[in-house]
Amino acid sequence: MKYCPQCGEETQRSIPEGDNRQRDVCASCDSIHYQNPRIIAGCIPVWQDKVLLCKRAISPRKGYWTLPAGFMELEETVEQAAIRETLEEAGAVVEAEELYALFNIPQIGQVYMIYRTTLLKPEFASGVESLETRLFSEAEIPWDEMAFPAMRLSLEYFFKDRADGSFSFRSTDLIRPALP
Amino acid sequence: MKYCPQCGEETQRSIPEGDNRQRDVCASCDSIHYQNPRIIAGCIPVWQDKVLLCKRAISPRKGYWTLPAGFMELEETVEQAAIRETLEEAGAVVEAEELYALFNIPQIGQVYMIYRTTLLKPEFASGVESLETRLFSEAEIPWDEMAFPAMRLSLEYFFKDRADGSFSFRSTDLIRPALP
Repeated sequence: MKYCPQCGEETQRSIPEGDNRQRDVCASCDSIHYQNPRIIAGCIPVWQDKVLLCKRAISPRKGYWTLPAGFMELEETVEQAAIRETLEEAGAVVEAEELYALFNIPQIGQVYMIYRTTLLKPEFASGVESLETRLFSEAEIPWDEMAFPAMRLSLEYFFKDRADGSFSFRSTDLIRPALP
Repeated sequence: MKYCPQCGEETQRSIPEGDNRQRDVCASCDSIHYQNPRIIAGCIPVWQDKVLLCKRAISPRKGYWTLPAGFMELEETVEQAAIRETLEEAGAVVEAEELYALFNIPQIGQVYMIYRTTLLKPEFASGVESLETRLFSEAEIPWDEMAFPAMRLSLEYFFKDRADGSFSFRSTDLIRPALP
């Protein structure tokens, strides 16, 4: 941030009184502009023994497969965001079962929250952000063509738990190793 | 937002191409400024049969009791945020057991994530945002003086589950009824 969104004057990085972190502060109107992590809400959409994946039509990771997911918006719940993204990206109507996996990616300020969901009917269609949308059995999952670690891990957890006969919530920190 | 944080020119509310929501858009530098919900991370800090609460020294709800919690920051995980807030507000070192309760408050763009945690030792002290910090048994909880519904509900869930002998994750939507 270079300019104050409230008054348009230049901001500075400084630690406000009573705080312990550098913030974007406006000396002109005294406003403090906080930046916080964002939630990416998504689904594992299940139909019988298969899972619905989307091939990404946009950067990053265009052409790779992912679970339907996207940034949570204001004025919705995490579950509503996950269901909305599945409708937008995969043209599929799902019902949420439960929050299944949480991934922290602190170096990019993202928290993934993935729900186990069930397709209400086996109907789907690629949204504008998807090149292709299809159901995959476990044996068919394109493991080497998955777009994001959080999505690959969500599927690994899902198939393991399904084989074990019981699903349990997972929380995983995806910390990138520091460069040498 | 009135001015573009990137270039300082006035922004407009409009729906960007390929989007379906009004955003703050800068016609001068073409940047789009998204606003997303924020995570409030907190703890139920447990010592033996008691829970640690803080009396708020700041608005909103100054003088009312709460669980230690606050806005998640960049470059930390949700669990780290919950533990950090407990150290800052209650001077207590806790170890996380599990994510226990999630609350959506869509009308104010907040998602509460509350962890069950254990105090490593019965030591605590009020931080600058707390007037008082103390351990409460279930019978001592000041139910009518709790600052926020999410905190009251977290404690209700906790004591019910403890009595039942098993804790289960709760997800609750706190939707305010529309004004008449």
